[in-house]
Amino acid sequence: MVNTKRTRDLLTRSTNLDVNSIVDELRSLRNASLESRQRHNRPPKLPSRKILVGVAEGLSASLFPNRLGSSELADEGIDHYVGHMLNVTLRELMVQIQHELHYNSGMEVLSDEDRQQSVDITRAFAKRLPKVRTLLESDIIAAYEGDPAARNVDEVLVCYPGIMAITHYRLAHELHNLGVPLIARMISEIAHSVTGIEIHPGAQISGSFFIDHGTGVVIGETAIIGKNVRLYQAVTLGAKRFPVDENGALVKGNVRHPIVEDDVVIYAGATILGRITIGSGSTIGGNVWLTHSVPPRSNISQPQS
Amino acid sequence: MVNTKRTRDLLTRSTNLDVNSIVDELRSLRNASLESRQRHNRPPKLPSRKILVGVAEGLSASLFPNRLGSSELADEGIDHYVGHMLNVTLRELMVQIQHELHYNSGMEVLSDEDRQQSVDITRAFAKRLPKVRTLLESDIIAAYEGDPAARNVDEVLVCYPGIMAITHYRLAHELHNLGVPLIARMISEIAHSVTGIEIHPGAQISGSFFIDHGTGVVIGETAIIGKNVRLYQAVTLGAKRFPVDENGALVKGNVRHPIVEDDVVIYAGATILGRITIGSGSTIGGNVWLTHSVPPRSNISQPQS
Amino acid sequence: MVNTKRTRDLLTRSTNLDVNSIVDELRSLRNASLESRQRHNRPPKLPSRKILVGVAEGLSASLFPNRLGSSELADEGIDHYVGHMLNVTLRELMVQIQHELHYNSGMEVLSDEDRQQSVDITRAFAKRLPKVRTLLESDIIAAYEGDPAARNVDEVLVCYPGIMAITHYRLAHELHNLGVPLIARMISEIAHSVTGIEIHPGAQISGSFFIDHGTGVVIGETAIIGKNVRLYQAVTLGAKRFPVDENGALVKGNVRHPIVEDDVVIYAGATILGRITIGSGSTIGGNVWLTHSVPPRSNISQPQS
Amino acid sequence: MVNTKRTRDLLTRSTNLDVNSIVDELRSLRNASLESRQRHNRPPKLPSRKILVGVAEGLSASLFPNRLGSSELADEGIDHYVGHMLNVTLRELMVQIQHELHYNSGMEVLSDEDRQQSVDITRAFAKRLPKVRTLLESDIIAAYEGDPAARNVDEVLVCYPGIMAITHYRLAHELHNLGVPLIARMISEIAHSVTGIEIHPGAQISGSFFIDHGTGVVIGETAIIGKNVRLYQAVTLGAKRFPVDENGALVKGNVRHPIVEDDVVIYAGATILGRITIGSGSTIGGNVWLTHSVPPRSNISQPQS
Amino acid sequence: MVNTKRTRDLLTRSTNLDVNSIVDELRSLRNASLESRQRHNRPPKLPSRKILVGVAEGLSASLFPNRLGSSELADEGIDHYVGHMLNVTLRELMVQIQHELHYNSGMEVLSDEDRQQSVDITRAFAKRLPKVRTLLESDIIAAYEGDPAARNVDEVLVCYPGIMAITHYRLAHELHNLGVPLIARMISEIAHSVTGIEIHPGAQISGSFFIDHGTGVVIGETAIIGKNVRLYQAVTLGAKRFPVDENGALVKGNVRHPIVEDDVVIYAGATILGRITIGSGSTIGGNVWLTHSVPPRSNISQPQS
Amino acid sequence: MVNTKRTRDLLTRSTNLDVNSIVDELRSLRNASLESRQRHNRPPKLPSRKILVGVAEGLSASLFPNRLGSSELADEGIDHYVGHMLNVTLRELMVQIQHELHYNSGMEVLSDEDRQQSVDITRAFAKRLPKVRTLLESDIIAAYEGDPAARNVDEVLVCYPGIMAITHYRLAHELHNLGVPLIARMISEIAHSVTGIEIHPGAQISGSFFIDHGTGVVIGETAIIGKNVRLYQAVTLGAKRFPVDENGALVKGNVRHPIVEDDVVIYAGATILGRITIGSGSTIGGNVWLTHSVPPRSNISQPQS
Repeated sequence: MVNTKRTRDLLTRSTNLDVNSIVDELRSLRNASLESRQRHNRPPKLPSRKILVGVAEGLSASLFPNRLGSSELADEGIDHYVGHMLNVTLRELMVQIQHELHYNSGMEVLSDEDRQQSVDITRAFAKRLPKVRTLLESDIIAAYEGDPAARNVDEVLVCYPGIMAITHYRLAHELHNLGVPLIARMISEIAHSVTGIEIHPGAQISGSFFIDHGTGVVIGETAIIGKNVRLYQAVTLGAKRFPVDENGALVKGNVRHPIVEDDVVIYAGATILGRITIGSGSTIGGNVWLTHSVPPRSNISQPQS
Repeated sequence: MVNTKRTRDLLTRSTNLDVNSIVDELRSLRNASLESRQRHNRPPKLPSRKILVGVAEGLSASLFPNRLGSSELADEGIDHYVGHMLNVTLRELMVQIQHELHYNSGMEVLSDEDRQQSVDITRAFAKRLPKVRTLLESDIIAAYEGDPAARNVDEVLVCYPGIMAITHYRLAHELHNLGVPLIARMISEIAHSVTGIEIHPGAQISGSFFIDHGTGVVIGETAIIGKNVRLYQAVTLGAKRFPVDENGALVKGNVRHPIVEDDVVIYAGATILGRITIGSGSTIGGNVWLTHSVPPRSNISQPQS
Repeated sequence: MVNTKRTRDLLTRSTNLDVNSIVDELRSLRNASLESRQRHNRPPKLPSRKILVGVAEGLSASLFPNRLGSSELADEGIDHYVGHMLNVTLRELMVQIQHELHYNSGMEVLSDEDRQQSVDITRAFAKRLPKVRTLLESDIIAAYEGDPAARNVDEVLVCYPGIMAITHYRLAHELHNLGVPLIARMISEIAHSVTGIEIHPGAQISGSFFIDHGTGVVIGETAIIGKNVRLYQAVTLGAKRFPVDENGALVKGNVRHPIVEDDVVIYAGATILGRITIGSGSTIGGNVWLTHSVPPRSNISQPQS
Repeated sequence: MVNTKRTRDLLTRSTNLDVNSIVDELRSLRNASLESRQRHNRPPKLPSRKILVGVAEGLSASLFPNRLGSSELADEGIDHYVGHMLNVTLRELMVQIQHELHYNSGMEVLSDEDRQQSVDITRAFAKRLPKVRTLLESDIIAAYEGDPAARNVDEVLVCYPGIMAITHYRLAHELHNLGVPLIARMISEIAHSVTGIEIHPGAQISGSFFIDHGTGVVIGETAIIGKNVRLYQAVTLGAKRFPVDENGALVKGNVRHPIVEDDVVIYAGATILGRITIGSGSTIGGNVWLTHSVPPRSNISQPQS
Repeated sequence: MVNTKRTRDLLTRSTNLDVNSIVDELRSLRNASLESRQRHNRPPKLPSRKILVGVAEGLSASLFPNRLGSSELADEGIDHYVGHMLNVTLRELMVQIQHELHYNSGMEVLSDEDRQQSVDITRAFAKRLPKVRTLLESDIIAAYEGDPAARNVDEVLVCYPGIMAITHYRLAHELHNLGVPLIARMISEIAHSVTGIEIHPGAQISGSFFIDHGTGVVIGETAIIGKNVRLYQAVTLGAKRFPVDENGALVKGNVRHPIVEDDVVIYAGATILGRITIGSGSTIGGNVWLTHSVPPRSNISQPQS
Repeated sequence: MVNTKRTRDLLTRSTNLDVNSIVDELRSLRNASLESRQRHNRPPKLPSRKILVGVAEGLSASLFPNRLGSSELADEGIDHYVGHMLNVTLRELMVQIQHELHYNSGMEVLSDEDRQQSVDITRAFAKRLPKVRTLLESDIIAAYEGDPAARNVDEVLVCYPGIMAITHYRLAHELHNLGVPLIARMISEIAHSVTGIEIHPGAQISGSFFIDHGTGVVIGETAIIGKNVRLYQAVTLGAKRFPVDENGALVKGNVRHPIVEDDVVIYAGATILGRITIGSGSTIGGNVWLTHSVPPRSNISQPQS
């Protein structure tokens, strides 16, 4: 049936998307990109965000099994649940740590040293979990005491985006300190995308920390925050400017974010930039723009319209 | 084979994560925490965020089956679809309500009164759904008329984060009024995490309400908003300060957020704090910081740099 | 057993939720709503957000298969992977394009012209993908060079919310230009909900664009952004006001957002409104409120408190 | 680093699976196969087994909503549930019917006639469902009364593989009669793979039919079975031989399987072949091999070892 | 547009499936069916096959965690895994037991006695698990020793359908004895549908039992099987005939299946019916039909063709 | 509240399942079992049935992409689809091959030789795929020509359990020959559980092989089957008896199953045992029991009752 055949050809041609030629172009671009970065080989794979989402959930459930874990647990099953979650989650984390170490090494295959290193980091991280839980408990109590709308501490734990962001931060901070900053950053970004709160895992934050509402909060890599500090939405603890070297390239890694001492409150929209110190017990008003240190018990506010 | 056996022991030891000791430490911390809160028993379970995500989606689909429900519906199937969605979703909600009532009671088992109460609340909530739909329809039309980029009302319904936030708020508000504030708060937080818009379920908001862009908007528990009000991103309707009692503890539950009358527009980043009144027909400019009442038809703006 | 029967009736009555009457009320409301919009028929279905989430992920994976695609790929499989992803994803996209065209037509069934149009748009979009990848590569390098915390370009690709937002924008922008603005908007909103960064698909943005942190950024429909521009969180490139016609209705579609020339840096919280021009090489400080054009190499900052 | 590069090449070569050449060979085979069958075009797609699994489950749930449907149904929700299941399931079935009609037509695109035909078949099938349920109810009661181990009729419905096989058969039989024999066969095969019972959809089976145990039962296309018949495992109602035409090709479609009249019992392993008649009220013993008709009330058994 | 409207009506009518009238008919049939069974109320729900599939898998994984459980377990995690699986699985089982007890009671709500009974049964069942494992280990070794094709005991455990059927039987048998015969039967049927082997949970089977190939095996409710017995495919241990009482109704529950003593081998297709005894050490040949007892060490075979 | 506390203790005690003591008992049994098998270490993991289900489906889809693969493929996408499926599926298979080789080695870690061996086996297997497809095509045609009910070859491919069983067998047979008999057996068992047809991967079967109905067919490890052979349900090609050595242990691996020459038909229920030869062109009737060779063109049938 010549006729039908021809119709088919027309039809086929008219829905053909020329995928093959696009595949070719994209291959050329990939190769050119590797070339330009002087990579002659295909890089090892990076840690997986999707798996780290599960790792962070599993660790949270291990720390607070009654509230964030399986709600069907009977009392006699809690320790088995926690033990099983830790076994599974820590081993998943260990594989991700291997990916980061392998990636950094630039070598063809994971070295035995890096494999052993991944075990050591995971074990050290596991040992830190009780300490992390203790800090989180102080944060939860701070939230309960700091929010007139909070009715009990359990509600805070399941409901407050600030608590989720701080939980991810505290886990990520330990990983950052143990030498896997990319995984730490990815865990931190997971909370950022859910809460709008961005806390760099390198920041140092003491206990009883509370962020209310939270959307738009940014806390930089070298910020230091004391005990019992409270932040509201859209507060920035940022860098003032980024120094460049003689070639105009950014100088990376220097200390550049604020120090916030104990018992400070910073209201919504305040922007605090540079390596300055907010003295203990100070109150920084909403929308304030601050780039110099203030002594303890300062009360800074913006002129009203 | 002594040799292999020894290698195995070494290997096993080197990958052992000492999970058992961490399980022990976490158990001690859990017990200490219950102790310090003078809880001698394991608390009843809280409502589940995951299930409430489905409840909110199911209710939205029941209200707008053609747009937010199954896209494969034929005309003759819509009522069965709506009926089935309501049957399933309302019963899931009822179970969550039982959890909240049980949790509040502090009793070992759910009382018969609380079980009956959960039925009554669910039935009362169901009766409010047509009213909620009517309000949402006015919000959608307000969005269509208020945004130069909107091409039709269906686009607004499927595309605008503000509409999603308001839908969740309007459902949560009814639940808040019916006596299940924790579920209400959790539903509100679900929209917060997706849209960056936080509306406390206790706020009172009339029809034709429009939030454009929306990221960073915060509307407090006791705010009152009139008809035909429009907000842009990062607007705060917040509390000015939190009064403490003689023991330094926060006074909870008092009226502390703004009243916004009909036909007000508030531009991006404006911060409006305290129990003040924005008179009807006023326009509040971007980034304005406002802590006193303004009369109807005011036009407040911030001095330009 | 009369007794049991009666108990059952009581029980049944007490848990009955009167769903039928709510179904009836909701049907009346749906019909009234269609009536008021003078729609006599059930409208065609809209594109599906859920499917577009998958389309955007599939396209990202096709562009960067080693980093955003399957991490289990061997070298010999990459082209098959890319080809297969494109085949599947582009055809899913084509179906969504048919929905948008059908919806716009207002006709009972999809016309042959619209069906052919959907093929043409998809094919034209596919041809743009290599160009999109080239632009994205420049954005990634800009992020790496612009952030002191970035350790390598791969980390930027998997970790930075700004890159996710720009990727979605660049895909959406092509679709917007090809005549499917609703799908474009929905893809853009998908990134908005994950990152808190809202870029209207109509905006025109050159290469080497970097958004750091990003939560709260809003870039309007008619904004034009030059090469090598850097933005921080909560920056607004918005409209100053919305002109209305003689009937008080919004004038839709006119040019109303800023032009930002090459090599400009805009710090956190700056609000730039109206069809003004920020001259090349300028720096706009944090929280600045700007509604007039500034010449090249300007340095605008807000007075400190 | 020449060295590493070379290692990589070796490694890559050693894990390379030559997939490309296999893809080429398989393409040649596909093309040769189409060629040999004188098909110049790619055939339309066939009905999907996976979707038909869901269709059969959905129809079963519609017929017995309390037992095979959602176990969480409240009384007031049953009709909505049944209506919704039918709407969804019948429309999925309609699409599969379109595939079968399209496939049979051998045309490029589905004709309008075939599309209308798919609606007509689906509607006629739907109208048969109450009749099917009535027959199934008689089968369930027959199973309850025929098995000393059965404790109640609900147990029979959820537990007995024979009931599952008969349910699929009765649905498939209606579809077979309505002109979609491929879908009918696929539905029948779904039950075959779960139960080991194969009933050709063309067979005619009256009510109160019971198959106990069932594994290995085969009932052929032209078999006719009266009321109140009971079969045990491994019974075959088959064809004696397959006549060939003058070219040695099988003559297809002629009557070739047994007629089993009312009230017959056939014990395990009996093999009954050809167009013979088992008179009403007969008992056929286990493992009997039977190829001739027997009068009513016969009692056939095999000599014992 | 009258025209379009009319086209729509035609179209709608032509695809309308009259679902509403079928819903009505099915409702009438449901009500008539309840009526005829003199049930005035909606019966409680039955145990769920889907959940019991998971229960059986979970119990198998608890018994053989290295082989049938998670393959990613490290040594230190096995006890937590087993404990967690048991906690979860036993509690799911307990809920199913409540359904069966509730169903049997015919009461509106689950009585406190039945609830306590469900705990007692579950606890008693749990205590039997080590005994079940010991028996299964003897079965696995019997399979390894009895099949020339078996290379090691692990292969037998993961590969042999007979082992799966016996595992489900041994679990079901305990539940049968503890008073939940419906759940027992459902678990047994799960294995039947996967393996084609049907073992009634009431049968009594000693250790070292091996079924090779297995499809078509049927073992009846009152069969008794000694130690070290081997069966091949399609062996039936069935009832000879079903006695009826004076009303013609089946007499239920009497002893009616064979006793097979220790060390017997029964080859493929043998049919053994009635309460007869196969003496220890006997061999029954393939396809043999046997309805009388045979003394120990008998060797029965069928005459060859 | 002493009272509540006591109630709780009672309640808790009454629902406590003593899981801990069962975990202890099961651990002892596991250890005793390893002990008795003189395994001092935990064995390496076995191949996963679940993953092999996916591998077999992926390979089937690669061989017949239009019928068994994604039904949404456009012509231009088929080669990418086949290539991608092969890449993914073959690599998954390679990992399973590593598990089998590792398990056999009994060593702590996978040796480099075994890793290389897994690549070699996978590559060799891949090269056999076109040959497998050619054989399967002959089988499909044989089924179409051999069944009066078959309407076309596509129906045979998607609908006939015999074709599924033969496809799995042909894939498994290649793996068996390449030295991974456990994976081969597991793939064969997957088809067994779905179809009731058991073909040992070691059997040698030429082209144009057809099994009709199929439930209960068993084909042993050393069977040899010529071209154009047809089998019906419940046919056994088995071993007559299993010789034991002087210690009474089974002699494993010797030749013990029938040879079936070209063009033989074997009807339902026939049992053919031992290393006998069925001459070419013979017909073996239903239920025949045969343990001696028959010459070409024999016609064996069982005496009728």
